[in-house]
Amino acid sequence: MEQFTAPIAKLIEEFAKLPGVGRKTAQRLSFHVLDMNNNEVLELAKAIVNAKKLTKFCTVCGNLSESEKCSICESVKRDKSIICVVEDVKDVAAMERAKEYKGIYHVLHGTISPLDGIGPDQINIKGLISRLDANISEIILATNPTIEGEATAVYISRLIKPMGIKVTRIAHGIPIGGDIEYADEVTLLKAMEGRREI
Amino acid sequence: MEQFTAPIAKLIEEFAKLPGVGRKTAQRLSFHVLDMNNNEVLELAKAIVNAKKLTKFCTVCGNLSESEKCSICESVKRDKSIICVVEDVKDVAAMERAKEYKGIYHVLHGTISPLDGIGPDQINIKGLISRLDANISEIILATNPTIEGEATAVYISRLIKPMGIKVTRIAHGIPIGGDIEYADEVTLLKAMEGRREI
Repeated sequence: MEQFTAPIAKLIEEFAKLPGVGRKTAQRLSFHVLDMNNNEVLELAKAIVNAKKLTKFCTVCGNLSESEKCSICESVKRDKSIICVVEDVKDVAAMERAKEYKGIYHVLHGTISPLDGIGPDQINIKGLISRLDANISEIILATNPTIEGEATAVYISRLIKPMGIKVTRIAHGIPIGGDIEYADEVTLLKAMEGRREI
Repeated sequence: MEQFTAPIAKLIEEFAKLPGVGRKTAQRLSFHVLDMNNNEVLELAKAIVNAKKLTKFCTVCGNLSESEKCSICESVKRDKSIICVVEDVKDVAAMERAKEYKGIYHVLHGTISPLDGIGPDQINIKGLISRLDANISEIILATNPTIEGEATAVYISRLIKPMGIKVTRIAHGIPIGGDIEYADEVTLLKAMEGRREI
């Protein structure tokens, strides 16, 4: 005996494929869809299809874009001499939320991870190198402070430094609002190493 | 400066409307959609639209149905003399998972809740009364053990008992696998009240 009708069972199955969505959550979401009005349901379905269909990646920096070049690369207000290298388009969004950085980006779409068979050629490093010219004054490496992120940063820095371009790494330390008491040793070590005179 | 392109921002907004989905989760889901292949995306969108479009409610019991009458009401294997009254179609699914109950159902689609302005006429009690005839031997009230669920059970029982039909309430007590040490007082009280000789 089926517990749900076929269309509901199918929707539960589809929702359950999403990351972090278990069977119970998939069920709850599916029944919520039934409670939504027709318009809302169509809006949701359309948003899903459109997000996939209309999203392209900037041919220059690899960021999300609706056209050939993303709005950051197109902007005249951005300093084109500084490139911030990140792993993922989500990292661009996080940086933009901070509203401070006025340079441009380069999205690697991954990190060097030999265990997963991902070498320098599998991520967008070539694209970065091809962007380097005399106008570039600084490359900021903002990959994550993970083993893969660090390895990728080191790899890129070794590649670029010989070209005479300034390469920097974002600072690691105690996060604002964080607690020294609960900080892990590596973070504490990085915070001590990175100390500055005040 | 927009953090995401319009189609992504729209999808995040739509996902964030779902119950239990906050902004962060909506973002994670949206980026997952970008990582899915075209087919998978269309499947998900189609499942959402179809679940809403193809799902009807049984005209007899109010359960989910793909046609006029649900598969339980249509089944010749079910005992049509026993009706289990539940609040929601999800409760039918839960009961069916237990695989023991062989009667049929009646889904109220809510509970009496004066504070929310929901009286007996706002839920499917009339439909239940119209189903009562000489063939019905028992009405099992399986509303939730909440204030509203209890009130609804009492209301229905007062309505039906004078008709000379047997009305029962499902047992409340310590759940199987539960721990008496951690049971709340109301549950313990119910468990004591409902004790049976062994």
